[in-house]
Parts: sequence; C-alpha cells; structure tokens
Amino acid sequence: MKLLVLKENLNKGLGFTERVVSKSLSLPILNNILLSAKGNFLNLSATDLEIGIRYWVLAKIDKEGKIVIPAKVLASFIGSLPESKISFESINNILHIKGESFKTKIKGFNPDEFPIIPKIEEKEFLELNSAPFCQGLAQVHKYASLNQTRPEISGIYLAFQKNQVQLASTDSFRLAEKTLLLEAGSEKSNFQGQSLILPQKIVQELINIGSEKKGKLKIYLTPNQIMFEFRTKESSQPQLQLISRLIEGDYPNYQEIIPKKYETQIVLPREKFLNHLKTASLFSGRINEVKVKIDPSQEEMEIFSQSSEIGENQSLVQGKTKGKMTEVSFNWRFLIDGLINIQSPEVSFELNGEEGPAALKPVGDPSYIYIIMPIKAS
Amino acid sequence: MKLLVLKENLNKGLGFTERVVSKSLSLPILNNILLSAKGNFLNLSATDLEIGIRYWVLAKIDKEGKIVIPAKVLASFIGSLPESKISFESINNILHIKGESFKTKIKGFNPDEFPIIPKIEEKEFLELNSAPFCQGLAQVHKYASLNQTRPEISGIYLAFQKNQVQLASTDSFRLAEKTLLLEAGSEKSNFQGQSLILPQKIVQELINIGSEKKGKLKIYLTPNQIMFEFRTKESSQPQLQLISRLIEGDYPNYQEIIPKKYETQIVLPREKFLNHLKTASLFSGRINEVKVKIDPSQEEMEIFSQSSEIGENQSLVQGKTKGKMTEVSFNWRFLIDGLINIQSPEVSFELNGEEGPAALKPVGDPSYIYIIMPIKAS
Repeated sequence: MKLLVLKENLNKGLGFTERVVSKSLSLPILNNILLSAKGNFLNLSATDLEIGIRYWVLAKIDKEGKIVIPAKVLASFIGSLPESKISFESINNILHIKGESFKTKIKGFNPDEFPIIPKIEEKEFLELNSAPFCQGLAQVHKYASLNQTRPEISGIYLAFQKNQVQLASTDSFRLAEKTLLLEAGSEKSNFQGQSLILPQKIVQELINIGSEKKGKLKIYLTPNQIMFEFRTKESSQPQLQLISRLIEGDYPNYQEIIPKKYETQIVLPREKFLNHLKTASLFSGRINEVKVKIDPSQEEMEIFSQSSEIGENQSLVQGKTKGKMTEVSFNWRFLIDGLINIQSPEVSFELNGEEGPAALKPVGDPSYIYIIMPIKAS
Repeated sequence: MKLLVLKENLNKGLGFTERVVSKSLSLPILNNILLSAKGNFLNLSATDLEIGIRYWVLAKIDKEGKIVIPAKVLASFIGSLPESKISFESINNILHIKGESFKTKIKGFNPDEFPIIPKIEEKEFLELNSAPFCQGLAQVHKYASLNQTRPEISGIYLAFQKNQVQLASTDSFRLAEKTLLLEAGSEKSNFQGQSLILPQKIVQELINIGSEKKGKLKIYLTPNQIMFEFRTKESSQPQLQLISRLIEGDYPNYQEIIPKKYETQIVLPREKFLNHLKTASLFSGRINEVKVKIDPSQEEMEIFSQSSEIGENQSLVQGKTKGKMTEVSFNWRFLIDGLINIQSPEVSFELNGEEGPAALKPVGDPSYIYIIMPIKAS
C-alpha cells in the first residue's frame, strides 16, 4: 500500500470509525482499523462484531494494499498533525507515515486477521433525508430500557407505514414516539408494513453522524441485518456505511398505552416547568417523587416535594388549565427527561388521574408524544 | 434571623463559600455554611479546619441572628431560583425561604455547633493588586509536590523582598519562579525579608477568586496563619476573607538550581513546540521519554520518541539556535506542563547538556522561569 491523503479528510473518517472500534481485551484485533487502498479511495473499516463501519476517503493511490493499525494511536497521531498532505506506505505490516516535518512508523497487523464485516446486497432500499431521521432518533433513543432481561425493549422500534415511519422507545415507565413523513414514492418500496428493532449502539452512531451529515440516507434491509448508507451529493461512491444486526422479538403493542383523551390539561412554558422541577428535585426523597396539583379554577400548577432530611419546597407555575382538579405524583427525573427532548416553547401536560398515564406534548407539533406513568400512591 | 437579599449577590457568595466547605464524613457539621445576619450584611462562613472563608452579602436585615445550613442544598437551591428577591427567616433552626412563586423550608443546625474560624488581628498589612498576584500564583502552583513526605515542598513559597515578591514551587523534577513587583511604599511594611509557605488549597482558592475579582488585596500575617482580604472599591466592609494555616519548615534554597548560563539555546514558536511534543508523546514509552537534538549548524530541533509496542516518531521544529550541539532526554509531560504556563508566542529553550538543568523562558518577559531536569541516560 502506498498513497497520499489529506489530513482533514482522513481525520474526519477516523473520527467516525474510531467510535465503532471495540475496546475488547479478549479480541484485541478489534481495537484496530483496517485500511484498504483501492481505486481512488482509502477505505477505513472497523467493527465490534455487533456493528460495522466502512468509510471512504479520497486518496491518490500509488499502490493498492491493506494493513491493520491500532485505532487510538492512528487517530490521535493524525489528529495531532499540523500538516495537510500525508503519505502512507506499508512495509511488512508497518505503516510508514511521512509529512514535510516528520517521519513516523506505526506497528500494524496482518490484514488477514481482521474479521469480515458482512456485505449487504444492495437491492431494494428506502431513501430518507438524513437530518430529520437522525434528529427523530435523538428524540426517542434514550428512553429505551437499559435492562437486558427484555431485549426487545432495549432497542428502538421502527415501523414503516404507507407514507410515514414511526420511531418509538420505552422502558415501561415512560415511552416516546416520533412520527416522520416519508417522501412521495416510498409507498412503493418493500419497506411498507415492515417493522424492526434497532440496537441502541447503532442508533447512537446514527445520531452522531446525522448531526454532521446532511443529504440523503439509504436504508438496506435483510431479515437479520440493516445497513445505513450516506453519500456525498451525487457521487457513485458511498462515503459511509453502517451495518448492524437487528434485535429479534416482538415489540410490545405500545399504541394501547397512549391515552386518547385527558382528565386535566395545563399548557405550561417549557423552560419554567423544567426549572421548577429542578428546584423541586433538590427536596425529593429517595424515589424522586414530586407531587403536582392542578386546580382548574386557577390558572396555575403547584409542584411540591419533601424530604425528611432536607426540608420541603412548594412552588407555582402559571399556565392555562382545563378539565378537573387533580393531584398526581411523578418521578421528577422522568418528567425532566421528557421536557428536554421537547423543543417548543410551550408544552401541553395532560393528566389522567392518580394512576393513569400522563402525556407531554410539544404545543404546535403533533409528531411527538412522551408518555409517563405516575408513581402510585403507596 | 429575618432578612431580604438579592439572589444574584447571594449566589455569588455561595459559589465562593461552597468551594471551601469540607466533604467530611467524620465531622458532618463542616458540610454546612454558617449564616449570620448583622448590621447591613448577611455573612456566609465555612471552613474545612485548614482554611476558612467569610463572605459578606448586602441584605436588608429585619432581625439579626444565625443559622447553620447544609451548603450543597442551599447553594443548589438558590442557584436554581429564577427570582431576584428572596426572604430568609430562621425559626427553630429551620430556614424558611420565600419568593413570589415559592415557599421552602430547609432544615438547619444549631449555630453553636459550628467551629470558630480564627480571627486575625488586623494590624500591619501588605496591599497588592489582586489580579497580577493571583495570576502569578496560577503560573507556579501546579508544580508543587503532591508527595506529603516533604511537606515544605508541597506548598507554594512566597519571599518578600525590597520591592518585589517571589512566588516559587518545585517537586524536585521541575521548578517554576515568578517575580512580581510591589507598589512603592511597601518597602516600609514589616513583610520585608519575610518568607512563608502557602498550602495548595488556599492557593487554589486565591486563583479561583482572583480570576473574578479585580481591585486590591490585603495580606495579614501572623507567625502561623495568613489572611487574604478582598474589598469592593472603597467600602469599609471587606467582601471576602480567606484564612489559612502556613506550612512549617524551611523551603529549599532553590535559587542554586537555576542555571546562570546555558550550553545550547533555541528560540521556538511556543504553540508549534507544544504540538510537536503532543505528537511525540503518543510514541513515548512508560517513562514518558522524548529526546531532543539540537545541532546549532542548523536552525531546527529534532524531537524523537519510540516505543517497542507502538512504533516511532521523528519531527523537526524550526528555531534560532546558539551554542553547542546537544542531545537530551526529557519527560514530555514536564515540558508540556511548563509550556502551558508560558503566554508569550516565543519561548527560549536553554539546555545544559545531558544531565544539567534546562530552562524554558517566555521571550520578552524576564519575570518567569521554568526549570526542568533531564531524564538521565541509564
């Protein structure tokens, strides 16, 4: 392998690739990145055996070839360089790197030892706008269960329908759902009516990539695996592919839990609600309990919390009220978690008594809903 | 105790005071702040028994009194409030806090249980400009030894001379010295010829305060203790006092180590030198060794590092050279530590062979010097 590459391009690719690299002690080869030079591109590949990544960097290839290099050393080294033009040459599994003011050797490994990242047949695909899809994932992903005893709810659920896709997650205490419209034409794809469960890790990577990459995203599906492909503009060469296994199992029929109506509603300024909850949290006890009280004869909500050790706090937030008087206990952490992913200045807080599920909805945006279960009176 | 206070003022005071509060499990009363209302001020006091702080906040006092309140709860609570006017009232060691939209009770303790922070007789003092003094401390403080077997070098040394004060620290591998000019008139003070050793913790607090507070700083000294006092403008009321014990013992005669001449000199761009060292550090072995090589027939320095596991790196930094050819090994961490506290764009790197002390000096600023010992050839 012998090539010339620009630091800036390589550095960006190493940033994405290094995140996927495993920190495995039992399989140290996974701590590396496979570099392959072919055609006009240097390809960077890494895998932790659950997800895989391939990234293509434009390069001037003098001699094709492959080498496996420790990810952390390579990424830190390239990141630290002040120069823009870098030459790579592999000799006996040692990578020689040169620039105007430096000469460096990094010890590598035999590329044959590197695991193969599965290829997915690039037949039928669904094309989406990258940014809204990745932002939608960011609004739901952190409510998935961390508990692995029910693997199906440890992932993020995607359900493709006629002209929309629903993203959902739950840990059985709360649940979030985001609905994204698909572009015209996608009704014809064989994704129609399909649903799947994505592992947390690939979702995390998509959110990370989506926050940088605009443009289109293609999704390829097999019964057990999924591939996300990002291209730059109209290039025939993909720039980045992420491959992941899917989680097996049936996702719970969460639609049943979403309340169709409410007994009490208050429309609150989101920022103020959030700040009052943070203050109240200082006085809540071990189970994070805060009590909210809405008397629709008054245009306000009372938030109350107390701890036998610290003291107590009672505060009022003004808002437009509707329905009947209510007093319900919540885990403040779950309320704050929900408010954080709502971007609108006002939020509709809809309650269904002491034990019924409550909802937080962004005012003016029907595409998102967050459901939270009350703490039951003991 | 009953009073009215502005959130902003109180919050600032709690910020400084809370930093001093101990996280002691054996003496839980030290996790608190003593609030005392008297005259036109609410005083906040805290101590960890090594250092003490007193902070005065302007307040409208309706009834004088005292109460002891958990520092973390109070600071977090006040910090979380959106409002500006806050009322305090203590009833049976419970602090009742009220604002327009909230009512809160925080459980406190009997003020008699709080330890007494020593008073220092306000006789003779030395007056300094706060900002340059605290910035000077910031340039030396982190080279003091962390090892408590030689307590005298675990602190920062201050030596008052005719019209200047020297600040110094060392851990025997490196040493930093900053010289500050005193204002005219201070020759008459009884600080003349005095020297003392300040514990790390008080220096850390002075740096923190000095980064915010401009104006004058008064220093009061007793044989075992020191007090630093900050006032706002011409107010007769001090705003903040910090009291600390002094470290006993004789500080080593470090002046002997500072080389008066050099065998080899190179003047380097500071930022570039720093970046090349960071790159080199990736390839250095367990003892952090990097080798620098200067051949004064060429206007450059070579930096070389290698590790049997990772590989090797060789790089060149351009600079003006003088003196004889040399090749010396250093701990890259100590070189970087020194460069970080130098602000000038160019640095003079002065070497004295394989075993002699080397110096880093900011070009154009004779008030600062950083000495570093080479790694001896084994």
